[in-house]
Amino acid sequence: MYGNIEPVARLVHALARLPGIGPKTAQRLAFFLLRQPLELSQELAEAVLSMRETVAFCSTCFHITAEDPCQICRDPRRDQSLLCVVEEPLDVLAFERTRRYRGLYHVLHGALSPVEGIGPDDLKIGPMLGRLGSGAIQEVILATNPNIEGDTTAQYLMQRLKPYNVRVTQIARGLPVGGDLEYADEVTLGQAMENRRDL
Amino acid sequence: MYGNIEPVARLVHALARLPGIGPKTAQRLAFFLLRQPLELSQELAEAVLSMRETVAFCSTCFHITAEDPCQICRDPRRDQSLLCVVEEPLDVLAFERTRRYRGLYHVLHGALSPVEGIGPDDLKIGPMLGRLGSGAIQEVILATNPNIEGDTTAQYLMQRLKPYNVRVTQIARGLPVGGDLEYADEVTLGQAMENRRDL
Repeated sequence: MYGNIEPVARLVHALARLPGIGPKTAQRLAFFLLRQPLELSQELAEAVLSMRETVAFCSTCFHITAEDPCQICRDPRRDQSLLCVVEEPLDVLAFERTRRYRGLYHVLHGALSPVEGIGPDDLKIGPMLGRLGSGAIQEVILATNPNIEGDTTAQYLMQRLKPYNVRVTQIARGLPVGGDLEYADEVTLGQAMENRRDL
Repeated sequence: MYGNIEPVARLVHALARLPGIGPKTAQRLAFFLLRQPLELSQELAEAVLSMRETVAFCSTCFHITAEDPCQICRDPRRDQSLLCVVEEPLDVLAFERTRRYRGLYHVLHGALSPVEGIGPDDLKIGPMLGRLGSGAIQEVILATNPNIEGDTTAQYLMQRLKPYNVRVTQIARGLPVGGDLEYADEVTLGQAMENRRDL
């Protein structure tokens, strides 16, 4: 009878290796998949494999890509003097959707977090500094998330960028467009006031 | 460039269909898998498929099994007059490990939870009542978890079992063996006192 549980135990073990999923959650997920139609499990397995087969990280900017280097890094029409540093590949997509930025990117793959044990060596910081060697990049735009981890990361990067002859900027903090001033949190409102500009 | 993200988006979508996993967590999991060695993704996909291929639920007791009915339901040496009702397949395994129970089981696959929207029709209660028809079962042992959902489920089952001519019992609440009385929570200690027995 115990033999029956082995395939379940194996899946539970595999799921529990994912971040934020403990043995209890892994168990719940495994039994959920058993109860659902076979198609859900097949879709999941297929999606995992096809993603790993077709998607990789650009060895220059670490954005997700099907070819290496990625289309953005290879595009000669992109402004080679601007480097926008973000935490995740999805942040690149968010900027691309704006159609307001035509420079290059660098994806850190995370943010510094002493709590989660994520240090500088866990992020793509070394490769980022390596890209400054050629002298082509003149401005590094820090676009980490506006939270504690993102701000800590930005401050750390600023220190590391000091020896380099580049301008270091950070994207603006302020009121979100379409938002309501009355409902803005005090930190955002305070930064919006501090960063006010002449019209 | 947007084409690259499609396999990632598909995996995020599949993961987000699992309980307790929202789009943000699904994204984090997908990027984690991309960063890890290919083997982890392969193991995960393989484990999902092989579990679904080799494991199913017994159509009698709803325990996990490779054959239907399961080995416990088919075993003539098990006491056919006892039916132990549990929430999950792993509870069956827990009881089997004790080697102190030789009756049959019925797995509800969950517990009543108005908060999570789990009602009687979501559990295997109908099939459980159906098993009482033959008259072979003389005692139903309620072994749901000792928490609010489990207790609610036990009380509901007690009501539903009233029309049947069976003894309904519940496994004992009390101090866990090896525990320290000083550190026992007051509810457990209170129940241990109430359920005291003659020596």
